Amino acid sequence: MIEAGTLAPPIQAERWFNTDKAALSLEAFRGKVVVLHAFQMLCPGCVSHAVPQARRLHEIAKSIDQLAIVGIHTVFEHHAAMTPVSLEAFLHEYKITFPVAVDAAAADGGRIPQTMTAYGFQGTPSTVVIDREGRIVRSSFGAEDDLVLGLFVGNALGR
Amino acid sequence: MIEAGTLAPPIQAERWFNTDKAALSLEAFRGKVVVLHAFQMLCPGCVSHAVPQARRLHEIAKSIDQLAIVGIHTVFEHHAAMTPVSLEAFLHEYKITFPVAVDAAAADGGRIPQTMTAYGFQGTPSTVVIDREGRIVRSSFGAEDDLVLGLFVGNALGR
Amino acid sequence: MIEAGTLAPPIQAERWFNTDKAALSLEAFRGKVVVLHAFQMLCPGCVSHAVPQARRLHEIAKSIDQLAIVGIHTVFEHHAAMTPVSLEAFLHEYKITFPVAVDAAAADGGRIPQTMTAYGFQGTPSTVVIDREGRIVRSSFGAEDDLVLGLFVGNALGR
Amino acid sequence: MIEAGTLAPPIQAERWFNTDKAALSLEAFRGKVVVLHAFQMLCPGCVSHAVPQARRLHEIAKSIDQLAIVGIHTVFEHHAAMTPVSLEAFLHEYKITFPVAVDAAAADGGRIPQTMTAYGFQGTPSTVVIDREGRIVRSSFGAEDDLVLGLFVGNALGR
Repeated sequence: MIEAGTLAPPIQAERWFNTDKAALSLEAFRGKVVVLHAFQMLCPGCVSHAVPQARRLHEIAKSIDQLAIVGIHTVFEHHAAMTPVSLEAFLHEYKITFPVAVDAAAADGGRIPQTMTAYGFQGTPSTVVIDREGRIVRSSFGAEDDLVLGLFVGNALGR
Repeated sequence: MIEAGTLAPPIQAERWFNTDKAALSLEAFRGKVVVLHAFQMLCPGCVSHAVPQARRLHEIAKSIDQLAIVGIHTVFEHHAAMTPVSLEAFLHEYKITFPVAVDAAAADGGRIPQTMTAYGFQGTPSTVVIDREGRIVRSSFGAEDDLVLGLFVGNALGR
Repeated sequence: MIEAGTLAPPIQAERWFNTDKAALSLEAFRGKVVVLHAFQMLCPGCVSHAVPQARRLHEIAKSIDQLAIVGIHTVFEHHAAMTPVSLEAFLHEYKITFPVAVDAAAADGGRIPQTMTAYGFQGTPSTVVIDREGRIVRSSFGAEDDLVLGLFVGNALGR
Repeated sequence: MIEAGTLAPPIQAERWFNTDKAALSLEAFRGKVVVLHAFQMLCPGCVSHAVPQARRLHEIAKSIDQLAIVGIHTVFEHHAAMTPVSLEAFLHEYKITFPVAVDAAAADGGRIPQTMTAYGFQGTPSTVVIDREGRIVRSSFGAEDDLVLGLFVGNALGR
């Protein structure tokens, strides 16, 4: 996993949902704290914990100008089962309205997509808190406790 | 919705998962109490409540010779997103090991599959308790309370 | 713990809450299935799981003529902290409206109250299902699963 | 309720649990962020949500030198049911190890204790976040969301 303090690598997206721009870049969020939420639509731990957490954080972020939530669908297994067509229905059914990138397939045909490799995610869900300068202040794998995530995000906002 | 006391209509399946038989028939379960669990893999209420409930009931049923759980994937929306390929990955990830039928598409090309129509399901999840004689003793739509479901199944087993 | 099939021992109560009778007897419930819910007001597992479960079962029982819920406050520790005065406030705050017995103190001054000893409860919460003839069909210690409890109660009702 | 930005009023305690000092003062915590957790042992919303939240925050605080949790038992109803004797058993059973004050009874014999009046709490649970300078940055009544509480505490820590 990538170290805290490192500049967050760019998101390599095959396509984006929930944005009217062709592509989003983390650089466009400089000055804001960004929570990057990496998930797979058929990952039970994502669906039961991380996705609802990201949604609630997105609701809270609506009243905090300086906080943004970005999702990234990092498919590393069951690729045929989790295509963008299926993801689109998933985002609709789970009422996810923050921007979501489809992580770009590996250039060499491997099963781990590009952004997942760049961030060194161990699996899904993974959660990254990025500060106003674009540096990673927290990167975790698995169910992130709400209090802990709130503390890291609040701390980045308070600085 | 179909009335209690009615003979349970046959399951019209396009294919089956988690059985080594080509097809299962409710008639083969006569003498057992059957819980029929209708779901869609991208239905949030199914994934958060009804699927785990069916899985727990299946675990319990392993020590009760006279109880069987049968799933049915009744896709009535987002058909392209919930194909058998996606369902197979879903069953794997959610560790569902009881038999699951893929409800047969409507003969007239409509969006409601055949078994869903026959049972008059209002949506997913739907849960049906069928007694030893093949008669419906309970059919409900939405999150079924564990205590209530247990009472109906236990009552059918006690008779 | 007492064996299934045994006649349920009488409840030895110091006093009763939530009944206008001076005392209740299990014999008065013959013909009904009774769920006996043994708890302590300062037992975390009781408060988080067993008490809400008993309350929900009591709600359900209102539409099932043949099911009754009876509570018993079996204090075996912190006796000075869980007096009837404190219990009365607890019942009020937790909206418990089914009859609750205060288990009678041991005649020999020991810390285990009389009904707890008669039933051989290992601790709290403990849950007992008693059939229409007054025989124990299930006795369990700890968090009882809703589905499992429903199955035992339903089975006793179905016979 | 007291306004954010105000200096936190002193805690008026009849006695303290979980500290070897005779009394604690908020002034001793200057330089730290303090979360003040007001509760009653027979308040269902406290027991199911706020008490476990305070306990988890206390666990997290063990690795954050600059964060302290202080409880205050603000009894405003059922006074005879929630004496210090009962509270002591409650703290033991719920494994609460952070300092807890017993709010001092009103001087005029009224039912609202002194600290509760000074903070203007509307009821229990109430949660107050106090910054390093002793100023209130957040005061809320009812179930406080974990993410929201984390954000306020993290923000106060980040400044």
